[in-house]
Amino acid sequence: MTSLIQATDATLSREPVDLVLTSGERPSTPTQTVLIELGDRSYPIVIGQGLLGKANTYATLPPAASAFVVTNTMVESLYADALRADLASRYAKVHCVVLPDGEAHKTWQTLNLIFDALLQHGCDRNTVLFALGGGVVGDMTGFAAASFMRGVPFVQVPTTLLAQVDSSVGGKTGINHPLGKNMIGAFHQPLLVVCDLDTLDTLPARELSAGLAEVIKYGPIYDMDFMAWLESHIDALRACDRVALAHAVRCSCEIKAAVVGADEREAGLRAILNFGHTFGHAIESGMGYGVWLHGEGVGAGMLMAAELSRRLGLVDAAFCARLRALVARAGLPVRAPVLDANDNAGRYLELMRVDKKAQAGEIRFVLIDGPGKAVLRTAPDALVREVVNTCCAPA
Amino acid sequence: MTSLIQATDATLSREPVDLVLTSGERPSTPTQTVLIELGDRSYPIVIGQGLLGKANTYATLPPAASAFVVTNTMVESLYADALRADLASRYAKVHCVVLPDGEAHKTWQTLNLIFDALLQHGCDRNTVLFALGGGVVGDMTGFAAASFMRGVPFVQVPTTLLAQVDSSVGGKTGINHPLGKNMIGAFHQPLLVVCDLDTLDTLPARELSAGLAEVIKYGPIYDMDFMAWLESHIDALRACDRVALAHAVRCSCEIKAAVVGADEREAGLRAILNFGHTFGHAIESGMGYGVWLHGEGVGAGMLMAAELSRRLGLVDAAFCARLRALVARAGLPVRAPVLDANDNAGRYLELMRVDKKAQAGEIRFVLIDGPGKAVLRTAPDALVREVVNTCCAPA
Repeated sequence: MTSLIQATDATLSREPVDLVLTSGERPSTPTQTVLIELGDRSYPIVIGQGLLGKANTYATLPPAASAFVVTNTMVESLYADALRADLASRYAKVHCVVLPDGEAHKTWQTLNLIFDALLQHGCDRNTVLFALGGGVVGDMTGFAAASFMRGVPFVQVPTTLLAQVDSSVGGKTGINHPLGKNMIGAFHQPLLVVCDLDTLDTLPARELSAGLAEVIKYGPIYDMDFMAWLESHIDALRACDRVALAHAVRCSCEIKAAVVGADEREAGLRAILNFGHTFGHAIESGMGYGVWLHGEGVGAGMLMAAELSRRLGLVDAAFCARLRALVARAGLPVRAPVLDANDNAGRYLELMRVDKKAQAGEIRFVLIDGPGKAVLRTAPDALVREVVNTCCAPA
Repeated sequence: MTSLIQATDATLSREPVDLVLTSGERPSTPTQTVLIELGDRSYPIVIGQGLLGKANTYATLPPAASAFVVTNTMVESLYADALRADLASRYAKVHCVVLPDGEAHKTWQTLNLIFDALLQHGCDRNTVLFALGGGVVGDMTGFAAASFMRGVPFVQVPTTLLAQVDSSVGGKTGINHPLGKNMIGAFHQPLLVVCDLDTLDTLPARELSAGLAEVIKYGPIYDMDFMAWLESHIDALRACDRVALAHAVRCSCEIKAAVVGADEREAGLRAILNFGHTFGHAIESGMGYGVWLHGEGVGAGMLMAAELSRRLGLVDAAFCARLRALVARAGLPVRAPVLDANDNAGRYLELMRVDKKAQAGEIRFVLIDGPGKAVLRTAPDALVREVVNTCCAPA
């Protein structure tokens, strides 16, 4: 596999970062750039502090008459003014639409608010959309950009850890359907991704933990050295240490970029990024979107996938315990929820069969084939039922 | 400009076809194929008689567990059984969803009926969608295919002349928004297009005429020899003569393919295909979708664009009269409707400013820059007002 990442800065070595934190002292980190190489759809991810409030963050964007900021009620009050001020120096008109907050609103109805506002403001094919918020805002803005007039440019300004490490790489955009998550969408690459680490200060601890689930997954599927680094720095990450966050975001983006670069349209390899997601989506959908956060479903889902890997003889119990300990230290639930008191395993199976990775009703699990390596395969229903029963059992 | 068309058949010369029709006799035409060259998204357009009812029409499609036919209430009763029978020999499951008929239903609500059915039937990423119907069914099925699970394959089986000559080439898909036509959509190429000329026998005369508008446009913008051929064969076309129809469909697809091949994403040249559409969209939108057929709007819109070209000194009055005569002989309205009794020209301008081709509120018209050549340019509002006043005037 060719690496599709280009380090544009000498600070971009993947060497572990050692941190010595003194109480009250907050180490700072220089701005770093990861270039996602996708031919004429290549784009940079800029990672650093204080990026909101610097107009020259957007200096490389093509000129246009108008910018259109999409955000949600929560993020709007915190960061919309700063972004609008940054953009005002570059665009004659800066419009803004504020969506309701949360996964439950990742629907066509909410998406239509974006289309309504774009048309009411007379936006055209050159208007640049800016997604200011978490994964929900990013996914919906990206899909709106993919579909409005059959495609307009957009920029991601992710303000959650989850969005910074996950949604910002890969070009996946979309909305949920009552019968399945992310069932309607498009592949549409942004022009630029701006990860301002300072925005994570205002992120609720529960959402920071949810973001860590998507960071942790890169260890088991791809890079056990990164997993070891996470085990040493999980507390620093939860404390929003900038140097640790910068390293975690950069490594996550680099690993994801390497995988996505080799398989942009998810024909094969890219599916390994869904480690924990098959079970996780069932949890999210079964509980009702928004009850469990996406990252929480992935956290518990990774442990279920690891347990299934173990029962298939692919990893040992020690690996499962190690992953479970890290997930717990990240502040994530380690026990999966009961979705149906009468036939819980049956309900999980039913929900997983409508997963996008399923083919002709056959569930394809992302499993760990020895630490640091993932594999896509099916499993007997009976074994999956055992895993569900084990992982949903009371402690 | 490189030609992106490959004739796969010796019958594909662009020489005019001479017809001598004897009453009651219907000449037949051999099946022809136009290959649309778009790299790994290339696909064939098959044009002929009796294609519905031949299972081997679909022999080149990749294997999949299920096929999913999208059609409308009108077409379903005529051709759905034949298509389902053709597909049953190739796919284990053939599902079908029947949409309400007409442009007024080219909405998100109708599109969602497709998504609902796809998910209810457990369709997956390999399911092949078949659009059986006119342009509305084709555009919505194409957008559903572009968006379902972020992209599944689809096949066009157009049953109207408009869809055969226009929607089947170029990969444009989408739905309308209350504030504008085709405002939400995607570029998504089909695997195959099957144009069965026999289906045009059941097409109402008004819709056949509407389809001829999109055939006629290729003359003024690209090929005056084709315009001369149309002037000789317009009656044969309206009588559904197979040899004439095959020639008209093939030439239209070839010209469109040459233009689209040079500019797939509509950065420049491709926009000339919208000759008559800027005024036409205003007519459709101003009258309420479905009151005027798309082709009727384009027919009157071409005459308005020609009149604007004349007033800008690009063509002479004789050219305008010649185009007007052909449009009239095709059975299309030559007078544009009054959209607003108080300020008709103002209403046209207002509607045209939200057209997708507009940039920062400036309308870009496709004008005729001498017969056979189109150009994109703006025009003074005062001149556009004169054109609207002239073209909407009572005879």
